[in-house]
Amino acid sequence: MEEYKALWLKGGIIIAINLLNDNKKAVDVGLGERDFYVDIESDNSISLEEAKKYALYKDYNFELQGNNVIYGKFKINIDSDVKPSGNPKFFEILNISVHHPTPDKQYVRIRGVAFETEEQLKDYLNWFEKASETDHRILGEKMDLFSFPDEAGPGLVLYHPKGQLIRNELIEYMREINNSMGYQEVYTTHVYRTILWKISGHYEMYKDKMLIFEHDDDELGIKPMNCPAHILIYKSKSRSYKDLPIRFSEFGNVYRWEKKGELYGLLRIRGFTQDDGHIFLREDQLKDEIKNLVKKTLEVLAKLGFKGDDVRINLSTRPDESIGTEEQWEKATKSLSDALGELKLNYILKEKEGAFYGPKIDFDIRDSLGRWWQLSTIQVDFNLPERFKLEYVDKDGNKKRPVMVHRAIYGSLERIMAILLEHYKGKLPTWISPVQVRVLPINEDVKNYAESIFNKLMSLRIRAELDTEDTLAKRIKRAYDDGVPYIIIVGKREASENKITIRARGNIEIRNVDSEKFINALSKEILNRDLNNSAVELLK
Amino acid sequence: MEEYKALWLKGGIIIAINLLNDNKKAVDVGLGERDFYVDIESDNSISLEEAKKYALYKDYNFELQGNNVIYGKFKINIDSDVKPSGNPKFFEILNISVHHPTPDKQYVRIRGVAFETEEQLKDYLNWFEKASETDHRILGEKMDLFSFPDEAGPGLVLYHPKGQLIRNELIEYMREINNSMGYQEVYTTHVYRTILWKISGHYEMYKDKMLIFEHDDDELGIKPMNCPAHILIYKSKSRSYKDLPIRFSEFGNVYRWEKKGELYGLLRIRGFTQDDGHIFLREDQLKDEIKNLVKKTLEVLAKLGFKGDDVRINLSTRPDESIGTEEQWEKATKSLSDALGELKLNYILKEKEGAFYGPKIDFDIRDSLGRWWQLSTIQVDFNLPERFKLEYVDKDGNKKRPVMVHRAIYGSLERIMAILLEHYKGKLPTWISPVQVRVLPINEDVKNYAESIFNKLMSLRIRAELDTEDTLAKRIKRAYDDGVPYIIIVGKREASENKITIRARGNIEIRNVDSEKFINALSKEILNRDLNNSAVELLK
Repeated sequence: MEEYKALWLKGGIIIAINLLNDNKKAVDVGLGERDFYVDIESDNSISLEEAKKYALYKDYNFELQGNNVIYGKFKINIDSDVKPSGNPKFFEILNISVHHPTPDKQYVRIRGVAFETEEQLKDYLNWFEKASETDHRILGEKMDLFSFPDEAGPGLVLYHPKGQLIRNELIEYMREINNSMGYQEVYTTHVYRTILWKISGHYEMYKDKMLIFEHDDDELGIKPMNCPAHILIYKSKSRSYKDLPIRFSEFGNVYRWEKKGELYGLLRIRGFTQDDGHIFLREDQLKDEIKNLVKKTLEVLAKLGFKGDDVRINLSTRPDESIGTEEQWEKATKSLSDALGELKLNYILKEKEGAFYGPKIDFDIRDSLGRWWQLSTIQVDFNLPERFKLEYVDKDGNKKRPVMVHRAIYGSLERIMAILLEHYKGKLPTWISPVQVRVLPINEDVKNYAESIFNKLMSLRIRAELDTEDTLAKRIKRAYDDGVPYIIIVGKREASENKITIRARGNIEIRNVDSEKFINALSKEILNRDLNNSAVELLK
Repeated sequence: MEEYKALWLKGGIIIAINLLNDNKKAVDVGLGERDFYVDIESDNSISLEEAKKYALYKDYNFELQGNNVIYGKFKINIDSDVKPSGNPKFFEILNISVHHPTPDKQYVRIRGVAFETEEQLKDYLNWFEKASETDHRILGEKMDLFSFPDEAGPGLVLYHPKGQLIRNELIEYMREINNSMGYQEVYTTHVYRTILWKISGHYEMYKDKMLIFEHDDDELGIKPMNCPAHILIYKSKSRSYKDLPIRFSEFGNVYRWEKKGELYGLLRIRGFTQDDGHIFLREDQLKDEIKNLVKKTLEVLAKLGFKGDDVRINLSTRPDESIGTEEQWEKATKSLSDALGELKLNYILKEKEGAFYGPKIDFDIRDSLGRWWQLSTIQVDFNLPERFKLEYVDKDGNKKRPVMVHRAIYGSLERIMAILLEHYKGKLPTWISPVQVRVLPINEDVKNYAESIFNKLMSLRIRAELDTEDTLAKRIKRAYDDGVPYIIIVGKREASENKITIRARGNIEIRNVDSEKFINALSKEILNRDLNNSAVELLK
């Protein structure tokens, strides 16, 4: 994209001058990663259609003075060191948004591109469409899932309703998995006195990435991890050997202040939600616990579409700098390798790559584009039980120290959502699709019938939408673009026979389907959290 | 309790000296609200039984020097200005906990009381038992629902597994209610650039209660409310008159830094979770929206046990200092009063008690102890739409400003949980009881049968526990103390006939019940979220 930046900037300047000539207060022009932007100071937003009126080439003779463009009496600030050049005649306006540069000002931002030839524009739009398919940031915007508004700040996300639906489905599934393994869910405050992080050692080791501040003569911090909080709950009462393993889970919101330049959509983010879990157990329980956890992790990964060769297991052993006795490390590492061995799983031995506090098992997955991602992790920890002086009362009445295991299967809701969006190119499995069915009546006459189908779906908690605007072709395309897995089309014939026509992914069309039969099959597909269009298979 | 404080302190000092004589490092003695405490510096916790060994009167001849007790070579710090006195001979140890005064030290805290006569002790224990029934802080500890550890800090809560079960049930119910009203759930980051609070006006009006701090050359703040975040989502795209009302809901975690002295359990707390909701709508939609919302609010309050005379509705009108036009206020206030009028509801007119930004309806409820609590709130807001320059495109293509409504039905999860715990004295309705059934086999012989009942309950997602330790009488008492609504007792006869014996609240015992019949009735009770033991009624 670099080669077009001078041209885009020029295009932005032309739009800005066009706006100024029409008494719109264009103030800034700059470059994004793949477009230009023009900011207009305005109390009212403008529509895409309005914006398009200003995307018109004119051969303005402007002057560059430092970071400003001077054109007659107008002065526009340029947020870029690129020198504008070329004759951009073919424009595309991509997006309109608003933000506040200062508390009392509002800027309307027009984002677009501009090229010298129609072919260049076409090439760009083709590229953009392709990139849109596999870039979760573009998909997230297109599918209205989430945003990163300027007023929140870099790396801090707002989930829109459809994004929150995906989050909630992912949470619900993990909750079932956690329940099946005997986890007890907890919820812990986000703010703590920093003494907690001094006990845990995070204050010393991790302070740079933490939000720490003074308030009311105390020093406070926002949690970057949930473990110390779970430890406080463990310590809130006396624990017996019979109580172990004790397993706490939390969909814990944590904040880690990564560098601004390193942020990247949901994949590198400052505030995120871990599907966190901590197990407190006896040494002799470690192998079985790990075995079950590994089995469940593979079950979850398979459910999300990753199995066989697309999953890689790593076992990392004691690094040179580490705490704990040789005996502890040997026993724990053996428990991990025995667990994998008994499950007959291949794994990669990563010697000396364990954490300083214990050995670990990681799971990498390969997505549809062939990229590997580190996802799930299971880490043994000898350190925190020591630092927090954890105990349980053993059979003989003596106090012993439990072992602790940290685990996350998704890693975080943000990470897994980004990976799933890119892996499936926005066409998510039905159970996590924000909209599962869209119902399209061919015309006004069959609207009532379409509504009855829609209501039936809603009453079964299937996420349906009724779309009656625009031509049928446009509505079908829109449903496809929005990643909706099933389209129900109804016309006069369907209405009279109580049937429906179904369009599904992979160019599948099935006519004359009994609506009840389809809805039952669809309910089953969602309940099973199937990966493929199993409802269609059931109909064949 | 004031009259006993000198005696309690004396008791604490005696225990401390007893500990020191046994080589335990007692370092601090102090007074709580209703007990004394002794802190021992120790890497190991001690059990209640061990602690009791030191609760023994001896006539020590110690000296007070400033804030220290000197006894021979021992020196103990006294965290109280009360002068110890009296001869406390009757002790009760109430609780053991651990905390960290500095990152590398652990203190074991023994809490207890001490009296001169056995009768005083009995009176205290009676009082304590009664107080325990209606103080959510004691109930929360006894039922293992939540804690406020010192390392988190005052007013910051950790929910233990059973507390989180209650939270999740309350969330799930509100989610259903919200869905039925057309709300779309969102999730928004906790941290924001302070420019957001400058736009909203919270920075100016509310700064004292906010956690605000500098980081990376920017000023950041933790959200004390969710509204500005919901507004950013509203503004993330263009909205049409046809889209309205747009309703966003969030179980939003907010932080408000109340003064330390004003904190009180879950009722006055620094970090809490609102069942928040914001509606963006046209003026002409206000009345119907409010009407539906008032109806649903009353439905929720009734479901929780508050209806008829125990609910009071207040309508607050324009105060002297306020923003917005006379016409706006008149229209909005009329919409609110018309909504209440059409529902034929009585309300109290609170003239000039509205917020500066709009009129509001509040709901107060009266609990079983006759106390009134402010709970639900519905507030019209002309201010934020103005400050954030909110718009929708009207039928005629013109841009108009929507009205905004803030609402919370529970108020917060913390507030409603505290009120429900006190109102029901810990005996919560079955659907929000952390443990819904406890299964007690009379002896080892019928353990398998008890297990089969337990498994059946668990498979239906009924929260059951199997209790096999101690005598039957002790187990029954324990289940009662823990607030478990149903106890299933099985003996030899029950096992042979596939029957069960049921104990329920209100001293109800039903023998020889078909287990399947009871489990079905119980499932129905939970599904309906019934207030009373409807499963028992169904069996009669």
